[in-house]
Amino acid sequence: MDLLAASIAIRWDDAGWLWLLDQRLLPGEERGLRIETAPAAADAIRDLVVRGAPAIGITAAYGVVLSALRHADAADPTAAVAADIATLRAARPTAVNLGWALDRMAATIEAAGGPDPETLLALAREIHLDDIAANHRMGELGAAEIEAGSAVLTHCNTGSLATGGYGTALGVIRSAHGGGRLTHVYAGETRPWLQGARLTAWELQQDGIPVDLVIEGAVASLFRSGRARWLVAGSDRIAANGDVANKIGTYSAALHARSHGGKVMIVAPFSTVDLAMPDGSGIPIEQRAADEVLGLGGRRVAAAGAGAWNPVFDITPAELVDVIVTERGVARPPFRESLAAQA
Amino acid sequence: MDLLAASIAIRWDDAGWLWLLDQRLLPGEERGLRIETAPAAADAIRDLVVRGAPAIGITAAYGVVLSALRHADAADPTAAVAADIATLRAARPTAVNLGWALDRMAATIEAAGGPDPETLLALAREIHLDDIAANHRMGELGAAEIEAGSAVLTHCNTGSLATGGYGTALGVIRSAHGGGRLTHVYAGETRPWLQGARLTAWELQQDGIPVDLVIEGAVASLFRSGRARWLVAGSDRIAANGDVANKIGTYSAALHARSHGGKVMIVAPFSTVDLAMPDGSGIPIEQRAADEVLGLGGRRVAAAGAGAWNPVFDITPAELVDVIVTERGVARPPFRESLAAQA
Repeated sequence: MDLLAASIAIRWDDAGWLWLLDQRLLPGEERGLRIETAPAAADAIRDLVVRGAPAIGITAAYGVVLSALRHADAADPTAAVAADIATLRAARPTAVNLGWALDRMAATIEAAGGPDPETLLALAREIHLDDIAANHRMGELGAAEIEAGSAVLTHCNTGSLATGGYGTALGVIRSAHGGGRLTHVYAGETRPWLQGARLTAWELQQDGIPVDLVIEGAVASLFRSGRARWLVAGSDRIAANGDVANKIGTYSAALHARSHGGKVMIVAPFSTVDLAMPDGSGIPIEQRAADEVLGLGGRRVAAAGAGAWNPVFDITPAELVDVIVTERGVARPPFRESLAAQA
Repeated sequence: MDLLAASIAIRWDDAGWLWLLDQRLLPGEERGLRIETAPAAADAIRDLVVRGAPAIGITAAYGVVLSALRHADAADPTAAVAADIATLRAARPTAVNLGWALDRMAATIEAAGGPDPETLLALAREIHLDDIAANHRMGELGAAEIEAGSAVLTHCNTGSLATGGYGTALGVIRSAHGGGRLTHVYAGETRPWLQGARLTAWELQQDGIPVDLVIEGAVASLFRSGRARWLVAGSDRIAANGDVANKIGTYSAALHARSHGGKVMIVAPFSTVDLAMPDGSGIPIEQRAADEVLGLGGRRVAAAGAGAWNPVFDITPAELVDVIVTERGVARPPFRESLAAQA
């Protein structure tokens, strides 16, 4: 079974370049970008051609392969690749998977005494394949937690587009839907980038899973009315105590779920767990340009002169989380112990 | 002082017609519509040229004046005007001030033995002026509740565009800003219609009051970070126990304010208080077309095939409300007693 065929966002071409689906154009247009250098890969990460913590890590890993290929004839390939790794590392601050993947690539360069492209490509493929396999495992584990006959809300996009393939939270929803456990799937539209409306709805439609979008302002009413039982979301970084950094709106949705008898499931590969981070207060929260809130797709919607406060992530405190699902198992409170036990 | 000069949404022209600012075009274009007949006024209400419960009531009152002028030479002016009143009443049957204003106009026709244009114009102006005066009174009362040095969040649009002039919740913000009490104003963008981004930001810019927009998904983080202290919002209907119906997203914002040490102020004319409605569970919540969520600013953004759950209002339970400000005073918990005392 060619697991990499499940990767609709990221594909390596054996001619020596990386293909990325330009997610900024979805769902209107399905167009790929050919990425030939590590700085171009960093740009693609920063500019949201590719997004989602696991997908960013995989893209960065292939970016190091690109660097090794381009600098094969450089005077000092190791230094040139190290500079590219620094560029890739700085592309986005919040997701831990980016640094995790780059650390693995850098360690391999050190162990091999230099940036051998074949060795690095093998590791990038391994990181990619491991992510897909982890997603399928999380899908099974998470689906088993969801009571049959449940309706769920997800937030942002955590599917094949955000990962190596299949997805984290969306992988759980796929598995639970396949197992006949779900009565309904709701997706938060996820302003300002509308990953829910553009990407999650697109993926679910392709899988034949019906989905109803909700604006973030309606999530409180969704849980209050009993329409949804679970919030199933991903994460960009999980602190040692179980505090969860994820797309802005996740904390809000978690509070609403728990205020109305619902439950909260976080689904992420174990590489997202940052045991060196004691709690969420130390996780850097990326602030992006006001223009993302003031407009859409280059078109201004807000009144001229208005500003915007635009944090991209929020921190859901561990007290609001019922289970954290990784490929290593289902962690339950107290998370400081249950997450450490997975290490 | 010409209070009617504060009315930027609705102006009567003594040549015998009504001018309405076309709010559908804001903030990109400031264009007025000349309304010459009552059916045209009803169309303007239905098509959201003018919105906001107080503004709708005032528009309908002037619509009756237009009817009386156009039918002055009719065989049976009273019957002709009665037919127009029925048309106006059906334009947006859920708007509470619409029926209230039309009842007053109809009672005057009955008392005068017919639709005298001068008498009706005097009453329409009185309704308009009373609304502006009530807003200024609420502005003073509400501003006095806000601690100096506070930052506030508002939701939707409750300003001059939604009322006769000055505004309800936005009137409080204007008064508090004028008194130097505010450090910052945040406005929820208010998906799906973006009244915050399009209308509230536009009004505040015209007044020289800086505003930062926030997506609804970021409101929890806004209060958690201590950036905002108060939620100041309007209402479409207030039940006898203090439960508040308002634009979707208000309940969510109120929960976030109160979960993080913030406070919640609701500002609405006393005509919004429905003492015959025991609590919020009896207030019908209008559901609108999925297309409003599936697009943004008039353009389709969601993936094809996706549905949407699109309630227009939510109910904020009285337990989350600190004060309800009407032109008659500041009501505090328990609201069943304090609101009844204003009757």
